[in-house]
Amino acid sequence: MTYLMKATPEAITKAQEARLAIRNGLDIPTAGMAKGMTQANMISLPRDWAFDFLLYAQRNPKSCPILDVCESGSYRTVLAKGADLRTDIPRYCVWENGKLVDEITDATELWAQHPDLVTFLIGCSFTFETPMLEAGIEIRHITDNCNVPMYKTNRLCRPAGRLEGELVVSMRPIPADRVSDAVMISGRFPSVHGAPVHIGSPDALGIKDIMSPDFGSSVRIEEGEIPVFWACGVTPQAAVMRSGVPFAISHAPGHMFITDVPDAAYHV
Amino acid sequence: MTYLMKATPEAITKAQEARLAIRNGLDIPTAGMAKGMTQANMISLPRDWAFDFLLYAQRNPKSCPILDVCESGSYRTVLAKGADLRTDIPRYCVWENGKLVDEITDATELWAQHPDLVTFLIGCSFTFETPMLEAGIEIRHITDNCNVPMYKTNRLCRPAGRLEGELVVSMRPIPADRVSDAVMISGRFPSVHGAPVHIGSPDALGIKDIMSPDFGSSVRIEEGEIPVFWACGVTPQAAVMRSGVPFAISHAPGHMFITDVPDAAYHV
Repeated sequence: MTYLMKATPEAITKAQEARLAIRNGLDIPTAGMAKGMTQANMISLPRDWAFDFLLYAQRNPKSCPILDVCESGSYRTVLAKGADLRTDIPRYCVWENGKLVDEITDATELWAQHPDLVTFLIGCSFTFETPMLEAGIEIRHITDNCNVPMYKTNRLCRPAGRLEGELVVSMRPIPADRVSDAVMISGRFPSVHGAPVHIGSPDALGIKDIMSPDFGSSVRIEEGEIPVFWACGVTPQAAVMRSGVPFAISHAPGHMFITDVPDAAYHV
Repeated sequence: MTYLMKATPEAITKAQEARLAIRNGLDIPTAGMAKGMTQANMISLPRDWAFDFLLYAQRNPKSCPILDVCESGSYRTVLAKGADLRTDIPRYCVWENGKLVDEITDATELWAQHPDLVTFLIGCSFTFETPMLEAGIEIRHITDNCNVPMYKTNRLCRPAGRLEGELVVSMRPIPADRVSDAVMISGRFPSVHGAPVHIGSPDALGIKDIMSPDFGSSVRIEEGEIPVFWACGVTPQAAVMRSGVPFAISHAPGHMFITDVPDAAYHV
């Protein structure tokens, strides 16, 4: 039995309620939902691709920190008892031969058509947003109630088998005098992306227009704020695209799986 | 007896040799000297001002982390057996009524004229430069063999008694993809200024021209590098200036006191 830190019953109830609302059709980005509970990125691949992906994650732990790998065909996870990974994510992306072919809110039917899917749940930077908020650091996409901006970079991850792809980053604008605190706080959560990979200088990451993210929403950057970039759990989707994986289901960027595990579990 | 972590005999010998060369007239910035040994800022004030200063340091620990306070009149410190604070710093600033009136390389005579001086040794950000170098982060002023650039900011420290003054910061240009590492590494040394106080956006600190530091040398900032600002032990000198302290002796910015204590002693 995996050891997992337990959340309070009240916190678990909040997570369950959020998942139930999502199962019943709530389709919004999950940043700020069930505060204090760990959210996760999802990627499901045919069994034949599972080893390549596990190796890709192992070689790129900053962007692909694995929180759980489900049994082939299973939509259950140790991270949330009773949850159903086919329905409990607000929005899914469907990939064929590396192309996004559909966005759906219920993956039950697709799961039935692909009975050998291996599902990976991957750490999400939302985990350290709560302690950052508690330290008085504004999280712009939570303030403005929109999705976090995410960018494909010019940095390639270390390839594994048939998989290769760019590092994807999320961005939060942070006042210059709080960047250091943001690094220290997020650095305490190494298994959910940890400290930023890049601070300022979007050009150097190959980001041409910071106001045009590849995924999610653009957010205001105020005078005196520095764009701070964290490795992002959308990185597997970039690998699916670039590597032409024949079939995959993923969460839609920013639309995460809410677990029953408290953020504190990933605090070193 | 204060507990102090001991350096190796070889390292202590290197520190002693550096102090001896300085005592014999070597007058250069000390960054990179006796690598791995803690360097300190110095400020000596008349006994009547000692309490105000100690309180000022206590209220502004990020810029004025005290490593030792010598007995009134004493030029000895527990940080380096046999060292003489009147001669073992390459260059001293002499202050009268808040004005810089002289720069000297031997303070023995002045010390005799002011027999009640209380001397404070204050942590220096050079301490975390060695682990930053070991992590492959270039320290520009070491590469270019010049003094670290330092700036008076528009941030006032918390006053204490008759003392008030601006926060002074040191600046190191760091590539955007290493800023996070620089924060994490320096953050492990809270008693020698710790993590940066400001990252990017010099304007917000009231720094009008990053190439014209108030103390030390200007350094190159290359494409893709972010100016990173740490609280600086020259902050007491800014307080001496602004508060019109009748008399004080300090080290000259960048010309530090080299102790027998290993940097590791301040690593949490």
